[in-house]
Amino acid sequence: MAAKLTVAVDAHGADLGPGEVAAGAALAVQRSDAQVLLFGPLDELQRGLPDGVPPSIELRDAPVSVAKQGDPARAVRAAPQASIVQAAQAVARGEAEALVCGGSTGAALAAGLFEIKRAKGIVRPALALPIPIPGSPVLLLDVGANVEVRAEHLVQFAHMGAAFAASVLGVSDPRVALLSNGEEPTRGTPEVLEAHARLAAGANAHGLRFVGNVEGTGLVEDAADVVVCDGFTGNVALKLMEGVSGVLIRAIRERARSSPRAALGGALLRPGLRGLRDEIDPERSGGAYLLGLRRLGVVCHGRFTRTGYANAIEVAQRGVRENAVARTLAALAAAGALRQGPARLRASEPPASVPVQG
Amino acid sequence: MAAKLTVAVDAHGADLGPGEVAAGAALAVQRSDAQVLLFGPLDELQRGLPDGVPPSIELRDAPVSVAKQGDPARAVRAAPQASIVQAAQAVARGEAEALVCGGSTGAALAAGLFEIKRAKGIVRPALALPIPIPGSPVLLLDVGANVEVRAEHLVQFAHMGAAFAASVLGVSDPRVALLSNGEEPTRGTPEVLEAHARLAAGANAHGLRFVGNVEGTGLVEDAADVVVCDGFTGNVALKLMEGVSGVLIRAIRERARSSPRAALGGALLRPGLRGLRDEIDPERSGGAYLLGLRRLGVVCHGRFTRTGYANAIEVAQRGVRENAVARTLAALAAAGALRQGPARLRASEPPASVPVQG
Repeated sequence: MAAKLTVAVDAHGADLGPGEVAAGAALAVQRSDAQVLLFGPLDELQRGLPDGVPPSIELRDAPVSVAKQGDPARAVRAAPQASIVQAAQAVARGEAEALVCGGSTGAALAAGLFEIKRAKGIVRPALALPIPIPGSPVLLLDVGANVEVRAEHLVQFAHMGAAFAASVLGVSDPRVALLSNGEEPTRGTPEVLEAHARLAAGANAHGLRFVGNVEGTGLVEDAADVVVCDGFTGNVALKLMEGVSGVLIRAIRERARSSPRAALGGALLRPGLRGLRDEIDPERSGGAYLLGLRRLGVVCHGRFTRTGYANAIEVAQRGVRENAVARTLAALAAAGALRQGPARLRASEPPASVPVQG
Repeated sequence: MAAKLTVAVDAHGADLGPGEVAAGAALAVQRSDAQVLLFGPLDELQRGLPDGVPPSIELRDAPVSVAKQGDPARAVRAAPQASIVQAAQAVARGEAEALVCGGSTGAALAAGLFEIKRAKGIVRPALALPIPIPGSPVLLLDVGANVEVRAEHLVQFAHMGAAFAASVLGVSDPRVALLSNGEEPTRGTPEVLEAHARLAAGANAHGLRFVGNVEGTGLVEDAADVVVCDGFTGNVALKLMEGVSGVLIRAIRERARSSPRAALGGALLRPGLRGLRDEIDPERSGGAYLLGLRRLGVVCHGRFTRTGYANAIEVAQRGVRENAVARTLAALAAAGALRQGPARLRASEPPASVPVQG
C-alpha cells in the first residue's frame, strides 16, 4: 500500500451508519487511486460492501464509537480504542497521510490534537468550511474549533485558509477578509481590529491578498474567497445560513402548493432549479477541513451519504498530493506568522501546568 | 399638542431624502392620532407635504445632518444643531415621548445616550430588530449597539427584549433564548455561559420564560420569540440573513429565466409569492428598537420609504401607550437585574475619568 496516498477513515458518526461510510470509501477508490484504511465495526463495514472488500480498502475492526458523547475531549482521552482515535493514530504513525471522519467535529478536533498534533508554529487548529454560495463559494474559518480567539489566531487562520484555498480548492490568489460588524478598519472587536492592522501591514509583502473587513452580506456576495472569524461567530453564521436557506425554500415550496396555478408554476420551474440544488449541496465539498495539524483532516456532516464521504476522501487525497500542510506552513513562515519557540514559554498564554508567575 | 402621544422624528438619514420622511409622517398622522415633531431642512420637508402641513405635524427647521459621518459619537457631540440631536433633545425635554430617526444607528445611539440618557439601572442600551421570518418572527438583540458585552448586559437584554415583545409586539409570554454555538448550557463564550446560568437560575421565579441556547438554525426555526446576543454577533447575523435571502431569491429568479418553460413556471408562481414578499418586508416592523433609554427610540433603515417611517412612528406611539419603558424597568427590578447605585462606583467598569485604583 503506497503510504503517500492512504487516507484513514473513521466509519462511525454517519447518521446512516458505518456501512454507508464503507460504501463511500468504495466509491472513492473506484474513482481514484486512493487507498483507504477503514476503521469501524467489521460486520457493519462488510455489510456496506456487498460486492466484497476492494483491494484498495483495508478494514480495521473498531467497534467503539465516541461520536455521540457530550464531552468529546474527555471521551477521546478515555477511549483509546475508539474508531476515531485509532484512525488518527494511523495518521500519526504514518500508515495514512490524512484523516476523514464524520459526525462530531469536537471528537475530530480532540483526536486530531492528541494524536496527529498541531503543526509546529501553529497556535490553534481551525475548522474551515466551504460555503456553497451559488456562483461565489467562500471558505469560512473558524466554524467552531475555537470559541474565543486572539488576534494572532485570526492572523494564522487567514494564512491557513488562503494557502488551503489556493493549493486544494484551486482558487488562484484568493481574496482574504475578516468577518466584522462593518467594513471600515475601525469596526470590530479588539481582536478583529488588531488582526486587521497586522494583516493590512503585512499583506502585500507576504503574498496574502487581504481585502479588509466584510459584513455578513459580503460573506455571501462574493466580497472575498476566504473569510476569517472566531469559532463562535463562525458557527452561528454557518447554522444561520443553513437555517435561512431552509426556511426560505420551505416557504416558497408551501406557496407553490397554495393554488393549482402556483402548483403548475412550481412544477414547470422545478427542473430549472435542479442545478441550483446541486450547486448548494453541502456534500459536494466533502465537509469541513481541519487545518493546522501536521496532517489534513476532513470532517463530514453526520447527514452525509456515501457521496459526501467519497468526496471527503478525494479532497483529503488532493490535500496530500498538493502538499497543503507544507505549503500552509511555508506561507505562514514567509509572513512571519508562525509562533516562535515552544508555546508553553509564552507568558501571554500559560498552560495550566506552568505557574503564571513561573 | 398632547405631549403624551407626540413622536419626535429626525427627517435626515433616509436615502430618499427628508421629503420622504415628511410624507411618512403625514401617512402616520392620517392613520392614527399621532402628533409629530419633524426635524429637518424646512424647504425639503415642505416639498414632501405637497398638500400642506397637517395640523398634527409641527415642522422644526434643522438643516444640519450627521447621518453620513464616520464617527457618529463625535459627530453628535460636535454638532448640537444637528437634526437628530434636536429631535433627541425634544424627547429629553418632554416635548415628545419617543424618538424616530433613520440611517445611522450609531448617531441614533449616541444622540439617545447623550440627550435622552440611559434609564436608571440599565447598564447598556441595546438595538433590537424584529426579524421577519415567515410564520415565526423573532426579536433579535443586540444587533450592533455593543460590540462587546458582559454577562450582566446579556441578562438585561433578555429582560428588555421580553418586556418589549410582550408589551409592544403583542407576543404573550415570549420565549427568550441566548444565541450560541450549541444548544447545551455548556456551549458558548464565557459571557454566554454566565448569562445562561443567571437566566436559568432566575427565570421561572421572575416571569421570564428562558428556553436556553439556540443555534443559528434555531434563530430562524421558531425556537424562541426573543434571541439575545452581543452586538458583533447580532450585526453579523442580521447582515447574513439579509445576504442569504437576497442571494437565494436572485439565484431562483435567474433560473426562472433560464428557459421558456421555467419562465412560464416563474410567472405562474409569482402571485403566490407576493404574500411571502410582504411578510418578509423589513419596513413592516418600522425598523430597529433602541431599548434601555428613558424613552423609546425607533431607528429606520436608510432604504425605507414613507411606509416604513409611518410604521416606525406608529410603533413608537404604541410603545408610549403601552408604557413599554416602565414595564421593562419593572420586569428588570422584579428579576433583580437592575444595576444598583451609580454605575461609576463599580470597580469592574471604571469610567475613563475615574482612576482605577481610586
